[in-house]
Parts: sequence; structure tokens; C-alpha cells
Amino acid sequence: MPRYKLTIEYDGTPFVGWQVQDNGRSVAGAIAEAIGKFAGETPKVSGAGRTDAGVHALGQVAHVDLAKDWDTDTIRDALNAHMRPESIAILSVDAVAPDFDARFSARARHYLYRIANRRADLALDRDRAWRMVRPLDARAIHEAAQRLVGHHDFTTFRSTECQAKSPVKTLDRLDVSRHGDEIRIEASARSFLHNQVRSMVGSLAQVGEGKWSADDMTKALEAKDRAACGPVAPACGLYLVRVDY
Amino acid sequence: MPRYKLTIEYDGTPFVGWQVQDNGRSVAGAIAEAIGKFAGETPKVSGAGRTDAGVHALGQVAHVDLAKDWDTDTIRDALNAHMRPESIAILSVDAVAPDFDARFSARARHYLYRIANRRADLALDRDRAWRMVRPLDARAIHEAAQRLVGHHDFTTFRSTECQAKSPVKTLDRLDVSRHGDEIRIEASARSFLHNQVRSMVGSLAQVGEGKWSADDMTKALEAKDRAACGPVAPACGLYLVRVDY
Repeated sequence: MPRYKLTIEYDGTPFVGWQVQDNGRSVAGAIAEAIGKFAGETPKVSGAGRTDAGVHALGQVAHVDLAKDWDTDTIRDALNAHMRPESIAILSVDAVAPDFDARFSARARHYLYRIANRRADLALDRDRAWRMVRPLDARAIHEAAQRLVGHHDFTTFRSTECQAKSPVKTLDRLDVSRHGDEIRIEASARSFLHNQVRSMVGSLAQVGEGKWSADDMTKALEAKDRAACGPVAPACGLYLVRVDY
Repeated sequence: MPRYKLTIEYDGTPFVGWQVQDNGRSVAGAIAEAIGKFAGETPKVSGAGRTDAGVHALGQVAHVDLAKDWDTDTIRDALNAHMRPESIAILSVDAVAPDFDARFSARARHYLYRIANRRADLALDRDRAWRMVRPLDARAIHEAAQRLVGHHDFTTFRSTECQAKSPVKTLDRLDVSRHGDEIRIEASARSFLHNQVRSMVGSLAQVGEGKWSADDMTKALEAKDRAACGPVAPACGLYLVRVDY
């Protein structure tokens, strides 16, 4: 059975998340449904990252096995046509080797978190960024973020529902920069724990507001205790940007 | 009566346009309603630019006269609170002189038009950009755009419903640049005719697809004939970015 790699963009707002669930419409479920309409089969759609409800993707990756050989552009165009007007777009489709696995072959995952640091409500960025009213110190956030980069036990920044065997991960990058009233937090790692980025961002927001110092961030990390985490940042600011293989 | 200047962001998708109309919800109408709830009076909300249905604003400007003196931050916060969850945000409120007029005092208006030049449907930029599938030559578009800059009779690029006394305007800037698969067209002038930016963009798209040359653009301009215009670009790609006073 030929295997295909899908690169996918979506607005996560209307979905219960990437993963197929009983309680509503999922991104993977919508894609599986479109494959059914187009190819007459509904294979498992395996994603690189199980984004939560409301989390967006600029470049999620998934793989699927189909019974027959298709032209990859045909798959892309057919899936997009069948998914309209769903807020999901298949950016590209590639034929890949049978041992390619969207989740396990990934060498790096890149996430972006957007904070709109302003007083006024968000009109164009509603559900696309986290609005934080108090002025944030992006430089202080960046400095504190560097305490989290490296090989650590991230128990503090891990959902209690996280199913990963080990809480130890290597965070390769956590860069914070200000662009006008937007603060962008860019995180890269081979893999992340469940809710790790939103947990780190929530704690970094404490630094931005001057409630935590960089040393407090180190203490939170070293506590290896979920209770030491700041309030988890909302889903709407998070984007799965790219997955490298 | 004290006069206030409002700077406003909105997602124009759900509205019939800026201007109050009989056929649906307008941005100015929603703001007037919020003023009514907050101040108990519903003054005329006069905008700098009458954006069409589906056109967005990052910095529309309007003025209103209120019966009493208010703290400007109070006006901003109260209007935003009363407009939730409408996709309109009052970014700032300033007290201005009684002769300030959002429309007639404007020295320059700045618009942005976004084209998503890609094959796949738009997920995150749905209703926020014009998707054009065929590869566009941004450099050729920019070159042709320069034929429109300056003091001209823009009859070709003016809606037949345009009520301006004269079709002669000075276009100060029409810059075209590519950023990945996005083409951005930035237009600045003291004022524009009705549908002028969308008409110019529609014609420039012909250049981008190789159907028109820069000389064809000059011919269209010199024809001073609405029939010489290319297909008008859709509203969803247009943003009123800023108004200078």
C-alpha cells in the first residue's frame, strides 16, 4: 500500500483538536472523511503532533496509507475540494517510503506562540492570539526562557494527562521577540510533552508581568512538580509551524 | 459638545460594510449601538473611509460628538465591552478639536491588499486574503503599478456608483512585494475613489498572470473608461491600514 505524507494548515478554533474523539469534530476526522469521499476508503490519519482543541497549524504533517497509487497533486486538490468550507487546507502531498511515520520519524517540531500585548479586544486576531493587557517585558521573558533550553525533566510543564513515558526532553530553542504589540515565542524540540509549550508560555507570562524572575523559572523547572507551573496559556495562541524529517 | 476620534480595527467579513445601511449590520451601526448603551445617546459615527462589505481595517478612524466630557480610556473600554463578541475593536480614543473631521481632515489614507498566491485553499487566511492559484510575477506587478502612481484621471479604476465629484486623484504610492507565497500591495493617497484599490489590484493581477503588460496598464488608465478595467479584486483581501491627519 503506498504511503503519503500530507502537510496541513488549519484554524483549530472549530475543532476538538487534531485527534479523533467522541465529543466533536476533529481535524484528523475531517481529513479521514474527505479521503473516504475521494478514495472510497477511510485509512487512519496519523499526525506528527496531537494539537489540542483551538490550537492551529501552519504545517502539521500526517501520513496515510491508500490502497492504490494516486498522483499526489490529485490527492491534494481532491481533499481540499471535499473539505470545503472546513478551515483545513492540505498544502502538499508527497509519496513517501513505507517506513515513514509522521510521528516517529520527526526530527524536530517547531511551534509558535503569539501574545497580543494590548488593551483593546482582538478583532482580526480573535482566537488567533492570547491577549494580555499588562505591558510585558519581552527581553525579560527571553532571558528567563533560556533557563528552560536544554535537556531537562519537564514534569513541571507537562499536563497531568500526558502519556509520554519519560518527562525528560531536550528543548532546542525558546526564543522570545517583540514585533509592535505582538510577542512571539518560538519553540523547537525533537518532541514535546503534552501541553508543554502552553505550560512554558503561561509561566513565561508571569515573568513578562514582573511576577516571576528568571530564577523563579529555574526553581519551577527544578521543582519537577506540576503545581509549580504558572497558569497554562490558552490554546488559541499556539501554532504548530513545521515538522522536520 | 466634545468631539472624540476613534481608531478602530475590524474583521469586515460579517458586516455589510462601514456605512449604516438598511440591508444588514454595519460597522458604524455596531459602534453607534455601543455608544448608545454606554452614553445613552446615539450620535452619527463619521468614518474616514467607507469600506465595503468584507473589507477589513487595522486603523479606520471615525469621529463622534458626545453630550458630555468622558475620560477617553473609559470610552474605549466601555465601547469594547459593549461590542463583545462583535469583531470590532476600538484601539484608542482621543479628544479632538471641534473642527476635526475624520473624513475631511485626513491627509493620507493607507491601504494594504493581500494576495495568497498558492494552490491550496486558505485555512487561516480564509476571508483575509485573495487566493490566486497561478504563479504571479510580483516584480512585473510592481513595475506596472508605477504607471498608476501620480496625478491622474482614475475613471477606469472607479466604481460606476462612485459619488466623488472628480475622478482625478493623486496616487502617492503603489508598492508591490512578495513575502513567501503572499503578495502585498500597499497603496497610499490623500483619498481614493470608490473601489479604486480593488479595481487597480484586479488589473494588476492581470499583469501578474502575464495577461497584461505594463503598457496595457497605461492604456487602461488613459482610456478613462470603466470598461477598460480588469476584474475587480475581491473585498476580503483589502485592509484600511492607517489614516494620517
